Amino acid sequence: MNVTKPTLLLDETKTRANIQRMMYKAVNSEVNMRPHFKTHQSADVGEWFKQAGITSATVSSVDMGLYFAENGWDDITVAFSVNWREIDNINRLAGMCELGLLVESLESVAFLAENLTQPVNIWLDVDAGYHRTGFAWDNHDHALKLMQAIDKSDKMSVKGMLTHAGHSYEGRTDAEIIAVYDETVSRFISLRDCLAGEGYTGLVLSVGDTPCCSVVDDFTAIDEIRPGCYVFYDVMQSVIGSCSIDDVAIGVACPVVAKQPARNQIVLYGGGVHLSNYSIDDRKGQHIFGRVAKLTDDGWDILPDSTYVKGLSQEHGVLHADEDVLDTVNIGDVLVVLPIHACTTANILKRYHLFDGRVFDLAPIPR
Amino acid sequence: MNVTKPTLLLDETKTRANIQRMMYKAVNSEVNMRPHFKTHQSADVGEWFKQAGITSATVSSVDMGLYFAENGWDDITVAFSVNWREIDNINRLAGMCELGLLVESLESVAFLAENLTQPVNIWLDVDAGYHRTGFAWDNHDHALKLMQAIDKSDKMSVKGMLTHAGHSYEGRTDAEIIAVYDETVSRFISLRDCLAGEGYTGLVLSVGDTPCCSVVDDFTAIDEIRPGCYVFYDVMQSVIGSCSIDDVAIGVACPVVAKQPARNQIVLYGGGVHLSNYSIDDRKGQHIFGRVAKLTDDGWDILPDSTYVKGLSQEHGVLHADEDVLDTVNIGDVLVVLPIHACTTANILKRYHLFDGRVFDLAPIPR
Repeated sequence: MNVTKPTLLLDETKTRANIQRMMYKAVNSEVNMRPHFKTHQSADVGEWFKQAGITSATVSSVDMGLYFAENGWDDITVAFSVNWREIDNINRLAGMCELGLLVESLESVAFLAENLTQPVNIWLDVDAGYHRTGFAWDNHDHALKLMQAIDKSDKMSVKGMLTHAGHSYEGRTDAEIIAVYDETVSRFISLRDCLAGEGYTGLVLSVGDTPCCSVVDDFTAIDEIRPGCYVFYDVMQSVIGSCSIDDVAIGVACPVVAKQPARNQIVLYGGGVHLSNYSIDDRKGQHIFGRVAKLTDDGWDILPDSTYVKGLSQEHGVLHADEDVLDTVNIGDVLVVLPIHACTTANILKRYHLFDGRVFDLAPIPR
Repeated sequence: MNVTKPTLLLDETKTRANIQRMMYKAVNSEVNMRPHFKTHQSADVGEWFKQAGITSATVSSVDMGLYFAENGWDDITVAFSVNWREIDNINRLAGMCELGLLVESLESVAFLAENLTQPVNIWLDVDAGYHRTGFAWDNHDHALKLMQAIDKSDKMSVKGMLTHAGHSYEGRTDAEIIAVYDETVSRFISLRDCLAGEGYTGLVLSVGDTPCCSVVDDFTAIDEIRPGCYVFYDVMQSVIGSCSIDDVAIGVACPVVAKQPARNQIVLYGGGVHLSNYSIDDRKGQHIFGRVAKLTDDGWDILPDSTYVKGLSQEHGVLHADEDVLDTVNIGDVLVVLPIHACTTANILKRYHLFDGRVFDLAPIPR
């Protein structure tokens, strides 16, 4: 591959294996697989999900929903609080596919009741511990009021309850992550049982975060999983323990532009505007902005974790480099940086380069 | 302004005032003003610099140089280590404008001597304390070898010495920032004097970082300044003390999608893929991802700093909100987030919206 500047590489084999592995788990537990497409944002990658037997998708914006609906996806959940200001596009999207929307407030239910022109599925957005969006799982009174309000609209049908257990990202052992999952599920079930006691039966449970979905094997207590990041995984997921570093399926090829052996540094053309500026403390306690690999003809060979991206500025990536990396890497060479957070890296670079020469563009910024 | 989703707002009056204020300082100290255009990346904003009497520019990539050269800029420094893999475009750019390049290694000088087809100006990339790129300011032997090697090429003329004192960003008082500047300049002068003693006279000194250029008033010891971020400023610069929060000239208008008074939260449609995920500890010790303002017809009114962005995920911005903000803000309203780091926010959103209806696009991603 002729790399002249920071270039987003996509390993098809690893990506398809990641898709397949999670699909097996969903099939084994007999849950619906509704992967989150915010990570890849690509109709071409979407085809690989279809080929793995996946027919429903999660997105994080109405625009992303429209993009995938235009690309043949007909069962889409927008896993994001209803944005009233996009009601015209929400109605448009609802006319294009079976659309799921999230609600947590009576205000938004009232707004939808007034403004929907198409039928939609409604998911109760439940806060089971992450405290981002959703109403508290133990606020039964509020859940009941929501159900009653939704019931009055002929455009809304409640499908189930949905949560994102984002606090699983704080876990560093399987036990910690499984504890988040178990707590989430038990809170969900308690709310479902409460609503069932009020006559609202048949609500399905949807959970979606890559750490829990990667570490837990048995999802039979719930009905649907919605992981996203697993399609590519990334350094953060490898540190959490959701995957091996070998599972990471995207990297950014970056030219080496300076080498400073006296300070054990190599400088890359590849900074925050290419990788995004996420960082994480790795398992050795090193504060890293990416792992480093050598480019090969059809992929990359990951270097030991003693070489890592120690800092990013807008266009610079600064590596702490081992002696033997310093000895074998020269200005003008290309190194590959495995990103901390795949979603944001892909979102910035907007185009995947495959090793057979194909390029896949991400959804364009809608205007 | 009809905001339906995260929208990058540009306040022309504040931007022009920021440009003008720094230009006055440059004129008063009789130094060349070569602003860094990586912050705005817009030919339209570039025109405002021209109208303020500015004729030379700094960029951080060859692509950005080509974009501004195509838009009429004829004196451009690429303030980034030479990327050998882009030599064809470097030569193209050198044919379009008076081009300045940075070198720190003998390898890159040899590469340029071999591969340049056009004359260029060379800046010695000096590490005066930030330790990102550049050779150490006290490595006189290396500086001399570089000068001798450059001398042998008929395509390269040494213009001067250049540094980015990025460690000024750690300052939180004027005294700390001035100390960084003074140390940088004294190191520069010592190196210049050494080279003058070897017969290399007339080297000019170029310094560029927004904190030093904002806080220092007298630049007579040097010859050129290259600040970038000052065009818009941002929350980080206000925390550092480079500007007032009222000087910040861009914001991201974000719809309110959820309100959770029980946890003092408001949730915005506006996350890391809109704002970038920079954060900073503010002067109260709050860890913030943005300041918050109310949208007005022609700008924004900044809320007290007790309301702030406390977390970002891909599309969500989660505010810690004061009681009276909770009382007066409703789902469906629009709030404005002032970004932590203007450069990365602009780079992601790619289009400025002015309050008179004009839109300015950033340079497209070159393919």
